[in-house]
Amino acid sequence: MTAAKLVQFRDRIRTELDRAVDFWLKYSHDKDHGGFFTCIGKDGKVYDELKYVWLQGRQVWMYSRLYRTMERFHRPEILQAAISGGEFLQKFAWVPSAGSSGKCAFCLTRDGRAVKVQRTIFSECFYVMALDELSRITGDLQMQAEAERVMALLVQWAQGGDWAGLGRAVLPGDAPVNSMAVPMMVLCLVQQLSDSRPDSAHKYHQLGDWCVQEILQHIQRDGTAILENVSKEGKELPGCQGRLQNPGHALEAGWFLLQYALAREDQALQRTAVEAFMEVPFSRGWDHQHGGLFYFLDVDGFCPTQLEWSMKLWWPHCEALIAFLLAYSHTKEPAMLDRFTQVYDYTFSHFPDPEQGEWFGYLTQQGSVALHFKGGPFKGFFHVPRCLHMCEMLLDDLLEQSHNP
Amino acid sequence: MTAAKLVQFRDRIRTELDRAVDFWLKYSHDKDHGGFFTCIGKDGKVYDELKYVWLQGRQVWMYSRLYRTMERFHRPEILQAAISGGEFLQKFAWVPSAGSSGKCAFCLTRDGRAVKVQRTIFSECFYVMALDELSRITGDLQMQAEAERVMALLVQWAQGGDWAGLGRAVLPGDAPVNSMAVPMMVLCLVQQLSDSRPDSAHKYHQLGDWCVQEILQHIQRDGTAILENVSKEGKELPGCQGRLQNPGHALEAGWFLLQYALAREDQALQRTAVEAFMEVPFSRGWDHQHGGLFYFLDVDGFCPTQLEWSMKLWWPHCEALIAFLLAYSHTKEPAMLDRFTQVYDYTFSHFPDPEQGEWFGYLTQQGSVALHFKGGPFKGFFHVPRCLHMCEMLLDDLLEQSHNP
Repeated sequence: MTAAKLVQFRDRIRTELDRAVDFWLKYSHDKDHGGFFTCIGKDGKVYDELKYVWLQGRQVWMYSRLYRTMERFHRPEILQAAISGGEFLQKFAWVPSAGSSGKCAFCLTRDGRAVKVQRTIFSECFYVMALDELSRITGDLQMQAEAERVMALLVQWAQGGDWAGLGRAVLPGDAPVNSMAVPMMVLCLVQQLSDSRPDSAHKYHQLGDWCVQEILQHIQRDGTAILENVSKEGKELPGCQGRLQNPGHALEAGWFLLQYALAREDQALQRTAVEAFMEVPFSRGWDHQHGGLFYFLDVDGFCPTQLEWSMKLWWPHCEALIAFLLAYSHTKEPAMLDRFTQVYDYTFSHFPDPEQGEWFGYLTQQGSVALHFKGGPFKGFFHVPRCLHMCEMLLDDLLEQSHNP
Repeated sequence: MTAAKLVQFRDRIRTELDRAVDFWLKYSHDKDHGGFFTCIGKDGKVYDELKYVWLQGRQVWMYSRLYRTMERFHRPEILQAAISGGEFLQKFAWVPSAGSSGKCAFCLTRDGRAVKVQRTIFSECFYVMALDELSRITGDLQMQAEAERVMALLVQWAQGGDWAGLGRAVLPGDAPVNSMAVPMMVLCLVQQLSDSRPDSAHKYHQLGDWCVQEILQHIQRDGTAILENVSKEGKELPGCQGRLQNPGHALEAGWFLLQYALAREDQALQRTAVEAFMEVPFSRGWDHQHGGLFYFLDVDGFCPTQLEWSMKLWWPHCEALIAFLLAYSHTKEPAMLDRFTQVYDYTFSHFPDPEQGEWFGYLTQQGSVALHFKGGPFKGFFHVPRCLHMCEMLLDDLLEQSHNP
């Protein structure tokens, strides 16, 4: 009976992945200037031509990963799309005059002129992720070296609190904070750069451990809460910032940690990943009234100040699906499959667009579509296909195991 | 019959103003460090101690204005609160190291250390507004001079596109934009600094005209739309930025312009203020299904990318009330009173908290409370009392006229 269910999941997931890939191949490519449109309406119409660097990088990475790891996507048009996106990124994303040593733009005009530079590390992270994955399918060593160059810079910013490098003023009330996004993204890059490369794995070994320690500091209140921001000493911070929970983000950290712990064969960390970073945010973050995961919550029950706190976003559900399926595939605990099924049922009955493919991204608390575009400044070709790609591969493995127990 | 209705409006408005003033007097004063808490829950509990400079300045301004213009608020405790808030601002808000010539912080710790500086002019605007109004009740000429000093700086930033002064990098894709907030805020300050001071009125005469011209550039599409962002030449911009409408903001511009046009006895501008900046955003911005004004809309009907676009916020309704009552009190057109009544009915049946006073700020599209705090990073002691204060005075005048026609 479980096998039949797994087949059902796998088939739906495969269909959704094909539909998502088709949607972005069809509507997002800028044939005149290169790169990708990401502001795309329900029906595929481009409603804004700005090019957000996070999303340019993520789309290059996703095409490259699909090309490299799934036979049915090992197609010339996907390779070509990845290469063209990578050229656009390398040509335009880097702004030498920003910060003290150059930075990636956050946003570019259609023809590649920088519009905005953020004072954070994330544009650089997706730039590195894209160039590294693309270089794996093209064998372009210069491109890989560029990824390593920017990786070194962003690690310096992330570890050293290098305000000048980020272009930030030093302010007396702006104490350094351990914000979970930073060690999570760096850990993701450590895994990206180390994959199948023993030399790099050795080079980034200590950095990976640093990321894990920084992430584990977010376990607070005797293990009953994951808090998004803590002090550099791992203590709870005052106010809204300190009480903030982002359940989808914690679940994403959960599967990052579990993957890392599996590669290191660290069983204690595997347990922590599941218990602290999956069970805790899921039980705190699930909306028992309307279903789905809240976007933000305050650990003491105050109202978050983010206007969108109660909305249901696609990506936390994507992260939850990956987390619980990865946990199930390694623990075989039925509870993990139950969680996966609960998230699956909500996700597949609310987010996909049966008419034109791809998913809606933003629902009200009650679960109706609040913003009906398919792509926007923060939703591109990334969370949906990454989730479907990983879940399909995990389900294939599980089904193979069940045939050959 | 109209008079009876006006009395009914006036009495409710007066009661709400008293309740709002009581709420902030009771819960927002920081007796240890000076300044005001603004993150305040439904029941008055402070849930975050950060001090947002916009809201510090606005609260000082509001207390001072109430003290100066309404007899029942001409009380020592209100004077004292304004003075104490002004001291906090003057002591802590200015960050000499920010930008190329110093800037105001956006946010301070409870004890006044800068946490964040924005690359815009608005913290400085509310700083100027506060110090000028406070100096009018204390007669502090040094304080007034400080307001004039910062006014000169921010006008230079606003008019000259002085990126360095704002601490912004020059980026090739970041073309200068006429964003309506900038000339609106400067016009508001021109009126603030010129009020009852012929020398200042003379000094700022040309600046006022510049603001008006910049605001009028936002009338687009043959007068059928007010767009939030246009080019420096007054042309429509491409993409989401160019198509953005913020009906509450346009209505606020409407009453700024009408006040200014009345003072100048400019009848053509009076008509434009009402027709373009009140009728147009009201007819485009009203939600015919659920009532209330949308927060953001795209002029071509695309979905805005702001997650909160369909929410109903308190402040657009405050601005609409002021706009239509001011328009009615000068035109005596019944249609203006009808608009006021329509907004009044929605506002007073949705935003006020009958239990603990003050208003909720953020409703879902359907009109239920989505965030149940009374104050937050962007909601302080400002829009509600400014609206109630102005509407009460306008209604008093109207009632007096109806007794002595």
